[in-house]
Formats: sequence, structure tokens, C-alpha cells
Amino acid sequence: MMRNILVVGAGKSTSYLLDYLLEQSVSENLHLTIGDLHPEHISKAVSNHKACTVISLDVFDNNARRKAIANSDIVISMLPARFHIKVAEDCLSLEKHLVTASYISDEIKNLDSKAKEKGLVFMNEIGLDPGIDHMSAMKVLDGIREKGGKVILFESFTGGLVAPESDNNLWNYKFTWNPRNVVTAGQGGTAKFIQEGTDKYIPYHKLFRRTEFLTIEGYGKFEGYANRDSLKYREAYGLKDVLTLYRGTMRRVGFSRAWNMFVQLGMTDDSFTIEHSKGMSYREFVNLFLPYSPTDTVELKLRLYLKIDQDDIMWEKLLELNLFDSSKKVTTANATPAQVLQEILEQHWTLNQDDKDMIVMYHKFGFELNGKKHQIDSNMVVLGENQNYTAMAKTVGLPVAIATLLILNKKITTPGVQIPLAKEVYEPILKELEKYGISFNEYQVPYLGYNPDSVAS
Amino acid sequence: MMRNILVVGAGKSTSYLLDYLLEQSVSENLHLTIGDLHPEHISKAVSNHKACTVISLDVFDNNARRKAIANSDIVISMLPARFHIKVAEDCLSLEKHLVTASYISDEIKNLDSKAKEKGLVFMNEIGLDPGIDHMSAMKVLDGIREKGGKVILFESFTGGLVAPESDNNLWNYKFTWNPRNVVTAGQGGTAKFIQEGTDKYIPYHKLFRRTEFLTIEGYGKFEGYANRDSLKYREAYGLKDVLTLYRGTMRRVGFSRAWNMFVQLGMTDDSFTIEHSKGMSYREFVNLFLPYSPTDTVELKLRLYLKIDQDDIMWEKLLELNLFDSSKKVTTANATPAQVLQEILEQHWTLNQDDKDMIVMYHKFGFELNGKKHQIDSNMVVLGENQNYTAMAKTVGLPVAIATLLILNKKITTPGVQIPLAKEVYEPILKELEKYGISFNEYQVPYLGYNPDSVAS
Repeated sequence: MMRNILVVGAGKSTSYLLDYLLEQSVSENLHLTIGDLHPEHISKAVSNHKACTVISLDVFDNNARRKAIANSDIVISMLPARFHIKVAEDCLSLEKHLVTASYISDEIKNLDSKAKEKGLVFMNEIGLDPGIDHMSAMKVLDGIREKGGKVILFESFTGGLVAPESDNNLWNYKFTWNPRNVVTAGQGGTAKFIQEGTDKYIPYHKLFRRTEFLTIEGYGKFEGYANRDSLKYREAYGLKDVLTLYRGTMRRVGFSRAWNMFVQLGMTDDSFTIEHSKGMSYREFVNLFLPYSPTDTVELKLRLYLKIDQDDIMWEKLLELNLFDSSKKVTTANATPAQVLQEILEQHWTLNQDDKDMIVMYHKFGFELNGKKHQIDSNMVVLGENQNYTAMAKTVGLPVAIATLLILNKKITTPGVQIPLAKEVYEPILKELEKYGISFNEYQVPYLGYNPDSVAS
Repeated sequence: MMRNILVVGAGKSTSYLLDYLLEQSVSENLHLTIGDLHPEHISKAVSNHKACTVISLDVFDNNARRKAIANSDIVISMLPARFHIKVAEDCLSLEKHLVTASYISDEIKNLDSKAKEKGLVFMNEIGLDPGIDHMSAMKVLDGIREKGGKVILFESFTGGLVAPESDNNLWNYKFTWNPRNVVTAGQGGTAKFIQEGTDKYIPYHKLFRRTEFLTIEGYGKFEGYANRDSLKYREAYGLKDVLTLYRGTMRRVGFSRAWNMFVQLGMTDDSFTIEHSKGMSYREFVNLFLPYSPTDTVELKLRLYLKIDQDDIMWEKLLELNLFDSSKKVTTANATPAQVLQEILEQHWTLNQDDKDMIVMYHKFGFELNGKKHQIDSNMVVLGENQNYTAMAKTVGLPVAIATLLILNKKITTPGVQIPLAKEVYEPILKELEKYGISFNEYQVPYLGYNPDSVAS
């Protein structure tokens, strides 16, 4: 019996997702329908596949959307998160399962009891972050608890970076995902977490100066800065009594200290627009954030303002971006500082055709077992193959595809609006991901936490 | 013929206002009705005055409010700004003039054409700042323009401080007005101004490090930090083509640099609440904003974080506030960091019974006349007499009282919702204020601006 899968939205993160399902279309009796507003962008290899039908679909066209959903057994929505609700409501009334890689919105959450009544699985947050982070963390956490251990520390970091072989700028960074999210990262509120039982707060303007270091064998040293709300999954992960809970974003060492220059200047501000941004030189843009002087250069004023020594590599990082160039012009009109900064960074941080990306994830689990403290570190590195087959597309798309097939095959059956925290979900998905090279290196380390038994006096 | 003045809201800033009107009640045939929710707080000297009636008035009681307004010839509203609209709407329908010291809200502004139709004067922003700042600036600006001068620079600063004789803490500061406004000052958006034709932006976390100095003869040196929107009155003041426009707040030198410590730590944040604030020690509060350490003291961590040298007076300023005291406890539950900080500061910065306050204002006017550049500086100092007769109450209340009498006496007649920018308004008020010791010291200085003709090379 043929099973029909509807994929709504086929953006660039769907390469691995579609391939996975099409590769198994014969053995698993699958037919894929891809509904997209711009079906012409879908690759020939996919659209010409005999198990695949491509349709032009406007998600706001209620009839077309309902018709497509009615013809399917399960729906994958890869639309921007705010558009999921239309699809989800139809899935509910037409009794179809739903899979998304997005954070659960309140609207979607409200469908939980009805989805349960109808026995429908609405699986969300099953991409990379959120997604693989949930599953890989829960696997270790459950393992510790099954052995009678008590978790006292959990830290988790994820980063979308450039692969070492393509890492050729001073920032050790290129945009591998939405640049806007990178420029405005950390804004919107004080970062909160707990360390050894104490609440800790970091305001935005200190966020990039409070990093911690992480080393991954074979890949060297990274740094992590705190996410806005490290406590978000505290209850869901069963970590109500944990003493240390910290979630963060990974960068190569030195990125945050340099990024902090933009924060201090005010260039990441997205709350007001610059009237004359269009045609303004990069140099003039920088000067907006510095005191006026009839004689001193923009360079000197910036050095003094941010206290950058003459031989500091931070300075070279600014020069690499042509930040003081008066011939380079901003092209966006009425742009916010953040939009101008993004435009400048995109000149230098956009992946080249042959650049490869890299996904890194790092967890730390501290626990007590038989009166002793232990620590497990666990990390993952995934490298992209090319611009189409990126590590980001792989780590976001494969868990979605695998979950879809597991739901179709009734391996995942617990109904309701959910995220992948149950063993029923993470165990088979993590196992399948390993076949595709997405696996965690897990090892015991001496418990470090933040309270080493012996400290220098 | 007796003229009836209704004063709605008789808070502590009304001492001079009421005295001024009562003193002239015989010569000017005035009767005052004071409507307040707590009339028992009004001083005996006022409430027993034969030209005065005190009534209990709840401004949300529509009948009582309308009745009181109907019995008056003019209304002064000294309520918090958000409550003016009720009074203003009644003034419109009952055809009474209105005077307030508050910023014009959009709601009040919308009454402009109707007020004009009915020939009513709705005078707003006629206190200190806004108020005396408008009037004293417009007087000099109009003077320059009448002589054919072209204004190229305008800077204006105001500060509510403690009088030199009561200035006995390391911060050279005490709360003389709403402490909450002091703690959250500068928040809510990037500060904007123009210097020599160039737009300039200062993010909140740099605001207190971009001060400029001002000296007032006999009172020493002050500093000013930028207000959020220096461009607010650009058009209203006729300064569309001005090259430098800057409005700021005055403090004693060193205050801003020290205040910046709280900003950097995140202690002025008012956007989230601390769950366990009640009963927390001052020391624990400080530690919320510092990294965890099993061994290092809160003191050491803070010194390193903010890079405070051992012999820096900044450190003494923190000690003076008992910031590291583990026996001092926060009393407010679920307080924001800003609320906790306010509570701590109020222990030290509250005026003593015999403390006196001080108001300072400083304007700079740069202009071109006959091909040459000139500059006029103009400043004002007002000292409080005691806790009831403060400089703040004097400088806020007297302009309100004087304007009220001028409107009653038809010296101010231009109808509509307005602020005191017209000569008809500022000229008689500034003259009358001089009798009460509120006057400006105005003098020519070499044009300094930001483009001195000769600079060190």
C-alpha cells in the first residue's frame, strides 16, 4: 500500500530530507508530493524522480492547501515557523500526522488535546537545534538516571560554522544560516542561567565577554556564549533540581571578543533606522557611533573608544571587513544599524561556491552516582559536502525525514503536540542518524563542574 | 470679580505654586480650590487660608470632577501626566483654560483644533524641564535671530542635584525627584543627537561614558550625558538647519563613570524580575551578575569584571553603598534588578530632613553673525530652602502659577494646545521668575563648538 507524504515548503534545507525519503520510496512504498510557491527551484533529480510529484502551492490558498493535505498520510512543514498553524489546523481536521523542525508556538501547543483525542502525532523541534540537541541530551540523561545517578550539571552548546578547510578569514566565521539571526543574536533580554545553584544574569552588552572554552578532539578549541534562556527546557528534561544549567552558542575562539566591538559601538542595534543609510560609506557608518572630532581620524577615535592596542588582532579583523573604507557604500535605504552591519558582513562572510560548512554540538553532563561525582562529555561534528548538501541541511533534514518514516511505520505512536524527548522517539532516530555519520563522541572526564575539590589558594 | 482657580492634585511639588497664587489672592481677586484624593496632606497654612477651599476629589469620579471644573475659570492639573486627559476633555466641553507641567501626550495634542475653536489656552510643559528650559532657550534664540544671526549650535542640560552644603557622599548625588526615573535613565533606546552636521548615536551601555564637562562660576564643574532624543524640539525651536543639537542631563563630575558600573553589571535592567529577591542580601544581589567561582570573592570578581584598580575611587563609591554587605537584605519581592538597586540607593541617597536640593541648567548657543562665529553660554542655579520648599518645587511650580495668572489676566491669549515657546508667554514669565531668584547668567564666550579654528597638530 502506497503511503503519501506531503512536504510543504522545499527550501534549501530540504536536500537531505527529500533524498532520504526518495531513496526509500521503493522499499517503503512512499510517494512524495512537494508543495512549494516556487516549484521551479526544486532540483531536477528530485522533481523527475518517479516517486515524486511537485505541485505549485500557496499555503494561504485554503482550498489548495486542504486538498493537498487531504491526499496525504502525513505532512512535513518546512515553512517558516509562523506559517505552520494553517497546516496544523488542517492536519487536525483532516486527521493527518505532522512533522516540523520549528519551535512549538503557543498556537500549535493549543492543539495538543485535540491531537491526542484523534491519535495524531504532531512532532516539532526535530531538526538540529532544536532537535538533535534534545535527543542526544535525553539519551545520556536517561542513561544516567537509569543507573541511579543524579544529574547535577547540564551544559549544551551548538554552532553553525565554516568547515576547517574553508575557514580562511580572521573571524573564523562565515554565514551558514540566516545572517540576520547572527547579527541580532543575544538581543531581546538578559541571558539567564544557573551555576552551582545560583541564578546568573548577563546583560547583552556583556554577553560576548562571558564565554567559556570547549575542545573537540581533532577540531581544536571553541568558545560558547550563553543563550537568552538556558532554563527553557529545565522541566521538560527533568532537571528541576540541577545545580548548573547552561545552554549556549559555539564559535571559534576569538569571535566573541571581536563581535563585542560591534555590540559596544551600537552597530547591532535593530530598533531604529538611519535616515540616510543608502549611499553612506562604511566609514561614515562607523563614524555615527563615535564622538565628533575636527581632526582625529575615525580609526583613532574607534581605537580609543574601544581601547584597542596597536598590535591587537582585533584591529586586523575590522580592517578585513573594509570597515574604514570611504569608497564602499551602503545600498539599503532606511536601514537599521544591524541591517547595515549585515550588509557589510555579507561582503566577506558569504560562503563561496566551494566552501563547506560545519555543525558542532557539545554537551556536558555532571552527575552523582554512589556518592561520587562524575562527568560525561559528548560532542558531535558534521561537515558539509557542498553548498547544496550542507551540514546544516543534513542535521536539520535527516531527523525530520527519519521521524516521518517512523511515524508512518507506527514506531512512534504516542499522540499529541510534542518534541523529541521520549525514548520511543530519540532511540531509533539517533541510531538511524549514525548510519549517515551523525554521531556523538561520548567519554568520561573527571568531574569539573564549577566546584573543583582542590583549587589554588 | 472673583476668579476661581482649580488645582487638581496637590503633591509635594506644589508648595511654591500654591503660595504664589494665595499671596496674590487679594490683589488679583483669586479664589483657589484644591482638589486632591488625600486633602489631609495639604499644609494648614494653605488649607486654612481664607482664599482657599480644599475638597476631596477623585479624578476618576466623573461627576465630582466635572462639577469642580465647572465652578472654575481655569484649571491647573498637577496629576501624573497620564491622568490629564480626563481633566482636559472636561476643560474643553466646559470651556475652561488648562495649565500642566507635563509633556504633551498624543491624546492631549488631538484636542488642539477644538481648543482653538473655543479660544481656550491649554498650556503644557511649563515646569522646569520641560518648561524653564524651553523659555530660557527661546529667549536667547529669538534674540540671536532678531539681530540677524544664524544659529549653528544649541546644547541644553538640566540637572536635579543636592545643594553644595548638603553634598556629603562620594557620588555627589541624592534623590531629589522620582528615584525610579534616575535608576532607569537612558533606557528605552539609543541616544541620538547631531554634532557638526553629523548624526551621532550612543547605545545605552556607552551613554555614561560619553559625557561632556560644564563649569558654572561659583559652583564648579559638572558633567552632562545625552538625553534619548535630542532632536525632539528641533523644528519647534526653529533649529532645522542647526549643525549641533544636543540635550542632556547634568550630574557632578564622576557620577556617570561610577553609575556606568551598575549599567555594565546589568543592575539597572527593569525588564525581568528576580524570583527570590526578597530576603536576598546585597552581596547575593551583586553576585547574580558575576560569574560563579568556588573560591574568589564577590569583590575580586567584580574588580576583575569591571577592571577597577585597587586605588580607584569607584571602589569606595561601591563600598559606601554597602553593596557587598551580606547582612543587608532586599525587602522587595519579585523585584527587577532596577527595583533592587533603587532600594539599595534609597538607603544612602534619600535627602535628610535638613538637606537642600539644587537645580542647575546650562545652555550653549553658537551662531554666525556678520560672517563671524559667536557663542553665548547661559546658566541658572536654584537652591532649595528646605524639604518642603525645594528648588524642584520652586522651578516646577512657579512657572505654572505665573502662567495661570497671565492667562486669567489675558496676557497670554493665543489659544490651542501649546508649550511655552512664544514670546507672549516666555517674556512675562521669565521676568516674573527673576523676582523669585530664578534667573540666568548669560555671557559671551569665544565660539568653541566642535570645530575650533586652531587645533594641536
